[in-house]
Amino acid sequence: MCGFPVVITDVHFTQKSSCNSRTPAVMKERIVDLRSDTVTRPSSEMMHAMMAAPVGDDVWGDDPTINQLQQEAAALFGKEAALFCPSGTMTNQIAIKCHTSPGEECVCSDTAHIFLYEGGGMAFNSAVQARIISGDRGRITASQIASAINAEDAHFPTTGLVCIENTTNKGGGAFYSADSLREISELCRTRGLPLHLDGARIFNAIVASQEYSTYDIGAMFDTISVCLSKGLGCPVGSLLLGSHQFIKKAHRIRKVMGGGMRQAGFLAAAGLYALKYNVERLAEDHSRAKQLGTALSDFPWVQKVYPVDTNIVIFTLQPQYDALSVQEQLKSSGLLISSMGGGVLRLVTHLDVNQEAVDWACSLLQELKI
Amino acid sequence: MCGFPVVITDVHFTQKSSCNSRTPAVMKERIVDLRSDTVTRPSSEMMHAMMAAPVGDDVWGDDPTINQLQQEAAALFGKEAALFCPSGTMTNQIAIKCHTSPGEECVCSDTAHIFLYEGGGMAFNSAVQARIISGDRGRITASQIASAINAEDAHFPTTGLVCIENTTNKGGGAFYSADSLREISELCRTRGLPLHLDGARIFNAIVASQEYSTYDIGAMFDTISVCLSKGLGCPVGSLLLGSHQFIKKAHRIRKVMGGGMRQAGFLAAAGLYALKYNVERLAEDHSRAKQLGTALSDFPWVQKVYPVDTNIVIFTLQPQYDALSVQEQLKSSGLLISSMGGGVLRLVTHLDVNQEAVDWACSLLQELKI
Amino acid sequence: MCGFPVVITDVHFTQKSSCNSRTPAVMKERIVDLRSDTVTRPSSEMMHAMMAAPVGDDVWGDDPTINQLQQEAAALFGKEAALFCPSGTMTNQIAIKCHTSPGEECVCSDTAHIFLYEGGGMAFNSAVQARIISGDRGRITASQIASAINAEDAHFPTTGLVCIENTTNKGGGAFYSADSLREISELCRTRGLPLHLDGARIFNAIVASQEYSTYDIGAMFDTISVCLSKGLGCPVGSLLLGSHQFIKKAHRIRKVMGGGMRQAGFLAAAGLYALKYNVERLAEDHSRAKQLGTALSDFPWVQKVYPVDTNIVIFTLQPQYDALSVQEQLKSSGLLISSMGGGVLRLVTHLDVNQEAVDWACSLLQELKI
Amino acid sequence: MCGFPVVITDVHFTQKSSCNSRTPAVMKERIVDLRSDTVTRPSSEMMHAMMAAPVGDDVWGDDPTINQLQQEAAALFGKEAALFCPSGTMTNQIAIKCHTSPGEECVCSDTAHIFLYEGGGMAFNSAVQARIISGDRGRITASQIASAINAEDAHFPTTGLVCIENTTNKGGGAFYSADSLREISELCRTRGLPLHLDGARIFNAIVASQEYSTYDIGAMFDTISVCLSKGLGCPVGSLLLGSHQFIKKAHRIRKVMGGGMRQAGFLAAAGLYALKYNVERLAEDHSRAKQLGTALSDFPWVQKVYPVDTNIVIFTLQPQYDALSVQEQLKSSGLLISSMGGGVLRLVTHLDVNQEAVDWACSLLQELKI
Repeated sequence: MCGFPVVITDVHFTQKSSCNSRTPAVMKERIVDLRSDTVTRPSSEMMHAMMAAPVGDDVWGDDPTINQLQQEAAALFGKEAALFCPSGTMTNQIAIKCHTSPGEECVCSDTAHIFLYEGGGMAFNSAVQARIISGDRGRITASQIASAINAEDAHFPTTGLVCIENTTNKGGGAFYSADSLREISELCRTRGLPLHLDGARIFNAIVASQEYSTYDIGAMFDTISVCLSKGLGCPVGSLLLGSHQFIKKAHRIRKVMGGGMRQAGFLAAAGLYALKYNVERLAEDHSRAKQLGTALSDFPWVQKVYPVDTNIVIFTLQPQYDALSVQEQLKSSGLLISSMGGGVLRLVTHLDVNQEAVDWACSLLQELKI
Repeated sequence: MCGFPVVITDVHFTQKSSCNSRTPAVMKERIVDLRSDTVTRPSSEMMHAMMAAPVGDDVWGDDPTINQLQQEAAALFGKEAALFCPSGTMTNQIAIKCHTSPGEECVCSDTAHIFLYEGGGMAFNSAVQARIISGDRGRITASQIASAINAEDAHFPTTGLVCIENTTNKGGGAFYSADSLREISELCRTRGLPLHLDGARIFNAIVASQEYSTYDIGAMFDTISVCLSKGLGCPVGSLLLGSHQFIKKAHRIRKVMGGGMRQAGFLAAAGLYALKYNVERLAEDHSRAKQLGTALSDFPWVQKVYPVDTNIVIFTLQPQYDALSVQEQLKSSGLLISSMGGGVLRLVTHLDVNQEAVDWACSLLQELKI
Repeated sequence: MCGFPVVITDVHFTQKSSCNSRTPAVMKERIVDLRSDTVTRPSSEMMHAMMAAPVGDDVWGDDPTINQLQQEAAALFGKEAALFCPSGTMTNQIAIKCHTSPGEECVCSDTAHIFLYEGGGMAFNSAVQARIISGDRGRITASQIASAINAEDAHFPTTGLVCIENTTNKGGGAFYSADSLREISELCRTRGLPLHLDGARIFNAIVASQEYSTYDIGAMFDTISVCLSKGLGCPVGSLLLGSHQFIKKAHRIRKVMGGGMRQAGFLAAAGLYALKYNVERLAEDHSRAKQLGTALSDFPWVQKVYPVDTNIVIFTLQPQYDALSVQEQLKSSGLLISSMGGGVLRLVTHLDVNQEAVDWACSLLQELKI
Repeated sequence: MCGFPVVITDVHFTQKSSCNSRTPAVMKERIVDLRSDTVTRPSSEMMHAMMAAPVGDDVWGDDPTINQLQQEAAALFGKEAALFCPSGTMTNQIAIKCHTSPGEECVCSDTAHIFLYEGGGMAFNSAVQARIISGDRGRITASQIASAINAEDAHFPTTGLVCIENTTNKGGGAFYSADSLREISELCRTRGLPLHLDGARIFNAIVASQEYSTYDIGAMFDTISVCLSKGLGCPVGSLLLGSHQFIKKAHRIRKVMGGGMRQAGFLAAAGLYALKYNVERLAEDHSRAKQLGTALSDFPWVQKVYPVDTNIVIFTLQPQYDALSVQEQLKSSGLLISSMGGGVLRLVTHLDVNQEAVDWACSLLQELKI
């Protein structure tokens, strides 16, 4: 094909053959990344499962691995159907869209991920107004929700949806008690309101609470969003669970939002692996988070450590210290943590941080000169 | 963790170790899938590149393979920046959103993918009205576009965007001439209108036309959507190309639409591989499509074969035959084709259909008893 | 209240006591305004009815005149309920909103007011895509509509609504036959599709067709928009008619769109007056429009006069003449007409143009030197 | 027109000639309506101005009275242009739309009318999320606003607008000090954020504060919504004020929302009258509201009377009393008041409640047996 003017070969193809997925992006003697449980990279066993997955064009419904993941995840929570999506933001946003009409209100915590961290998606995608409630570390109560339901009057938005987050992200990994979930579920059924669970870290809640199973969760919520790419250690993907009818509607919304993927069975295979092997081990993340929290509470430069219920540790500094400089100083030593603004810092334990890494992090924090 | 009620181990984990990605989802002695070029599965070389890719959390900008793909794709078209997205629907929808405000009109062909096949996304995501033009096999002209631009008057929607598809999907793979693209580009610049290219199959157009390069395309359009999962043979993904400022805005819209993925570098690696190895070979798909078209035009049951310019063959049946039963009969023999409604049938050649498969398909069609 | 700094008395209150509503805004020896039937000003009898109307706060449901108008208009068409709105654009837009969900399609003529002249409102207010059909002077058929209904597939927008305009504005006042309306109505019921009537000039259609009554119209359509400010001669207002349940929903949408007015009974009183006194006289407007059409068809500078079915006359000029300059020349002589673009001119007869004015207009046109 | 089947003459035209606009809708020996200042009916002088107004088709820009009102109102606040709309909800909603893009946040009080009482319009019309702040009787501070402005990050909605309400409705008619407004205005300019005033009762604020003029207000806000149908006593209408460029954009949005009216000069004439004659007298409403507040604070069944700054009196009942039954009991004696939910009752003074009516209301409340 001499002489034809496509500019393609000019591209410098720079992928190094020596690279592999186990190598941190930033080279250090040691990097311990506690910014979030989203940073995990697939283990070699998960990679093996991904490579071995049969795939097909999921837009035509032909990807056997995605179909299997959807069926198994739905069954796990006692739901009829599931939908695999590129992100937890998309599963939440689709749920809000399917449950509501433009001009309605969605009741949620004032720290809810759907309110704070999804780019204003509730209004953008669904033309729905957030009716926020100030809860206890992100957990809201049935009686607060009841007060937030609007009377029927054209001045007021119609209350169209209640959304709960469990565990709470900004609430520092707090989980709901079974009783409080049951009260909320009963209220919503009585009032005819759909109830959605942002279960980005629902497995952390289930493992930590020891009070409720996936079936119990499935029975209490109309729809559930579950993230595979957080504590479960998958590279990409979330699942939206609900009735057949709901998932059919959600499938249409996923299409129009551009979430329909082709041979995504590689990603789904990671999900199948994680549901089998990476759930019960979350207890280790929780115990390591507690270790970090206990260590922090002894340091003189720490003002307050919030209760550590699952895999998230949130703490504040004594007023004389600057959060950003602490964060930078730790980074220069190889420990990555995240800032939540207003002098609040956060550590998250996960699959890629083993016991030895946490011990090292504790030593590093112990020796911190600030 | 005895006795605690998480229902997880009850799931039957049914992934068969004998499966691999090379096995067709539906087992047949032989399956030749000409439904679409979206059905390709990664070659083992592409799989190798995927599994060797360094990855990171792209929501934090930490995935080196995605970053590399975005830089190289932008460079290839002479654009400043690029954004990797889960689908071509998403890249198109983000582009429409970023270029327009609610209540505006987007000028496009009445057969445009963005109008017909994206679930009404132009209205759903952007509150924009389609101003459709009837073109020649999906190709519209500068003078048609000029006539469709509204005068300034509050009754009329403001014309906010022009969108071209090259090659045209429903137009049977027709490509634009360099002259017609230039005229459209000049019109849009003169009138201050942004011009977006739905380049789902832009490499087919470039390879077939031999008139314009990726640089030429980049210079004529403000923004470009390029699909990796069609002729290029990648499992998942599309790229949106434009200026730094545009891609920054697009990044925000991708987030709110739920298109932000975590360790998606596995998918990006396939893209990098495909841009290097799978572009020039599209000429083979084109020649095989011509072979199919020529064969079809000889059959008595075929009414008309549309011109075959790239990798898409569209034909109609003589009135006495039923499209659905032809489609089913071929399927039972292992040849999958797609129906476009109204008695119109479509075949698409691609990376997973080699010369021998096309020869076999021609024989099968030759021998068809209908 | 000396010395306090509110700047209010500085305003020059310039309302002239000599003005009255019968005086044309632009002073001429004679002005005949055939631009549209929207330009009418209330007669003194209508003014009397307006000023005598009991009013209240309609946001609280307390305006007796609005309540009466809504009840009478609904009864007139055999509908359960009605809603008074500031404009026909609002009644149409509310209807589209109430019948559809975002991402659906509304089937209508490619010359429909809702598509061409409502600022892209279908997408802006309802996130709905127009599925346009090319009809006969704006009239579409049941079989065309049937072809435009999408199959169930996530790629295609769900067909959510059919909208008919009768008489057609851009179609030059053409009205539907009873048979064609019945076929459309039956199709929509069979397919479970809501059917809305843009009845901006429905009384013109009823009076001219002599084939169907307001009851017949009410029975064939789910919802109806009726304008009071066109042929009926009211200053402001349109009515949306439908079931109790629909109007309750519409009332909520009117609120959120800002269409809830307070003591608007003054405007409603004009509507009550017009429904009683200004309907049957539309036949006069029609006969005067025919007179204008017949006159025009004799002039050498006129290329074509479209059929005159009701009160709208559309004609084109011989190619050597310029529409804008004809319009300007007539304006300078006191005759106002409107241009529809592309060399098409329009005259509309109405309540404020009596026989003598039409005769004068015919003479003026006769003597036109262009 | 014998025998043709239009059903029009069947309508019972029941407008009673004896009715006039001065007669209350509900007949009582005496009705004093303190539910809201929106319930006023035009005085005979205002009616006279309305009847005498020259009108035209405002969709074509031909209504001289609307044009005059728009010019005078803009000049009064030192703004370039104004737009007459059917309601204050519409002026606010148009302003939000024009200032923002979908997915952005609008900072406002958690008691703001735009958040609580406009049917979720911010999300419905503009796809914008409310970022609410808990203020002092609805008044928020510059430092609260500064804290609510989001950092640049795709997770967070872009802060797009700040909106202030003065006086506050749910805050019981509280007005902002000049200093607090100036601080807010300076903050917004520094941060490049547009600042909108919901001035439904801005004249009450100006008259009561004695600290700032209409010019001062105009200088501090980018855009202002002013209601004519509240304290000013007009039947219908609000004005949106801003720059020429802004009002041009607003005009387009008014069209697409269905707020374009035809011969609405009748309503505008009331506005011109009110701006001349009904502003300074608001001081009387304020003094009467104070009288009601003082009286209420002496009654044993009243728990708390909130500060009375303008024309709104908000009070709560001792816990043993039921708000609804108090409201009903007063209604049966001819005194209408409104309930705000949660045992909170509200009285509003206005143009149709003179000194004698307020004295009578005080006596009635004094003698209340509950």
